Amino acid sequence: MTVTIALDAMGGDDAPGMVIDGAIAAAARHPEARFLLVGREDAIKWELKEAGVDSSRFGIVSASQFVEMDEKPSDALRRKKDSSIRVGANLVKSGEADALVSAGNTGALMAIARFVLKTLPGIDRPAIAGLMPGSVRPTLMMDLGANVDCTLDHLVQFSLMGEIYAKEVMGLSKPKIGLLNIGEEEMKGNEAVKKAGDLLKANPCYIGNVEGTDIFMGDVDVVVCDGFVGNIALKTGEGVAQLFTHFLKKAFGKNLLTKLGGLLAYPALKGFKSDMDHRKYNGAMLLGLNGVVVKSHGGADGYAFSNAIRVAVELAENRINDKIKTEVTRLHEGREGAS
Amino acid sequence: MTVTIALDAMGGDDAPGMVIDGAIAAAARHPEARFLLVGREDAIKWELKEAGVDSSRFGIVSASQFVEMDEKPSDALRRKKDSSIRVGANLVKSGEADALVSAGNTGALMAIARFVLKTLPGIDRPAIAGLMPGSVRPTLMMDLGANVDCTLDHLVQFSLMGEIYAKEVMGLSKPKIGLLNIGEEEMKGNEAVKKAGDLLKANPCYIGNVEGTDIFMGDVDVVVCDGFVGNIALKTGEGVAQLFTHFLKKAFGKNLLTKLGGLLAYPALKGFKSDMDHRKYNGAMLLGLNGVVVKSHGGADGYAFSNAIRVAVELAENRINDKIKTEVTRLHEGREGAS
Repeated sequence: MTVTIALDAMGGDDAPGMVIDGAIAAAARHPEARFLLVGREDAIKWELKEAGVDSSRFGIVSASQFVEMDEKPSDALRRKKDSSIRVGANLVKSGEADALVSAGNTGALMAIARFVLKTLPGIDRPAIAGLMPGSVRPTLMMDLGANVDCTLDHLVQFSLMGEIYAKEVMGLSKPKIGLLNIGEEEMKGNEAVKKAGDLLKANPCYIGNVEGTDIFMGDVDVVVCDGFVGNIALKTGEGVAQLFTHFLKKAFGKNLLTKLGGLLAYPALKGFKSDMDHRKYNGAMLLGLNGVVVKSHGGADGYAFSNAIRVAVELAENRINDKIKTEVTRLHEGREGAS
Repeated sequence: MTVTIALDAMGGDDAPGMVIDGAIAAAARHPEARFLLVGREDAIKWELKEAGVDSSRFGIVSASQFVEMDEKPSDALRRKKDSSIRVGANLVKSGEADALVSAGNTGALMAIARFVLKTLPGIDRPAIAGLMPGSVRPTLMMDLGANVDCTLDHLVQFSLMGEIYAKEVMGLSKPKIGLLNIGEEEMKGNEAVKKAGDLLKANPCYIGNVEGTDIFMGDVDVVVCDGFVGNIALKTGEGVAQLFTHFLKKAFGKNLLTKLGGLLAYPALKGFKSDMDHRKYNGAMLLGLNGVVVKSHGGADGYAFSNAIRVAVELAENRINDKIKTEVTRLHEGREGAS
């Protein structure tokens, strides 16, 4: 199936250069896909020429404005009707593109995408979902920060979207779904989490509560939580990874002997660096919208951005939103039938 | 000042052996302190004899029962009136001991300590506080799991207790206090966190919101959050650290070349291991109780347990609870005066 992916050429710390780099890598990786570069035409053309590539693989869609990284989402939504994010979202809405990928302002991307595309029927709020590295296999975690306070219905909807993603994209016939919670028996979770757990028991994929350690070291495929907890868990994990790297560098840089050791350990350290490379996991999905939108890390380079594009291609090719729509409808009919 | 520390000899996966090992190490480190070993007398005496130490440094207080690691806290509280935790808490209440250290069942320790010692006047709920490793310096974080749903008053009380600890034990004249929150401007935190932030603005030590990354990499001394978020952040951090270690071992164990590299990198890896040694950070404080109680990790070894004992000695020697009491009273009088 040929899919068309719109790329926000203006979003991200190193845009548009890194977007073009990512697009070139993605074009080589996905010969079946078409890419539309959205943004200032002169800048895009200059970058393509600099890279010396055949620009016929890429369409260019002009957008005269772009959203600043620290701009208020509500301002971006109201005042910048011709921003690259807005034009990209419109392309998805009109069907000219099957997905939008942006490394721009997260809040603005969420606000604009929600305004232009609306949520899927039966889904109250879109969630940010991302793949986390694991000792056994990657884990899908959501919500990573779109919704601060979630009701049990939101959590159940997140679990449903996660289940469909795990089945369709990760290829798991019976993914294991867990609710992120704390360990102590007598005080398991806040009210919404407790009630969501009661409701989810009917789902054979639901394995119960999981703890923070399980995200990375556990036997779970989909971890569901509210956006406040999810975002803090995500950033805490990043912090520990940075601290680890800091101490590792410090240890190898201590003296001549340790520096020599580092040199001789280079093959191992290189393998380790590749395993822990967060750029491989770039590309968070805004699930629950009437269209595919993928958020890249703002500090992404071309390689990282190409991975966010891969996430969008997978979502579009698997027609993930159609499947969420079908399942949500079935769930609602099932509930109405039962009541 | 001579302090007396009660040690729950029966709590923890490797008790009583590791408790005795920890006590011996602590006795050497704190010649000014006295230690009371609480538990089954025969088992304690046997361990002391095995270790071949002068047992006159240690008092033994008999307790006929002990709380299982997976026992329900309410059962432990109701049915085991002669458990080592209960007897230890009673020693603190009567003034025979200045602090209790236990590696036993966290929920039971919290329930029993709260029942026996009660909370300090002006403190609604005790919190679990712990030191986290940092690239610059350690950070005190609380609550780590005692309270699932916190009001703004609880968060403000936690910040006050954290501030006093940072001043008195960490020796900081103006500690930086932050509220754990998420990054997006437009949706900063849930209601309790937002309101607590408004109230804390009056405190010159308050630096505003901090994110998960800041716990380990930031310029903050005290991180305040509710126990649900705090526990998940703690466990997530542990998970990432385990994943890092897993990948590091995998990278060095890959083939003969990488194994040789690991051997030659040994001095650096040893330094790294020491920096990241979580046993150094063992000993979470149950702050806000009318008495000093420190929780050791259940899987602690003697070295880790000796560090939990050090935390208790520091809290007792600094008379931290008296200072919290004074400050809370002052805060209340200030508020009443203002209203």
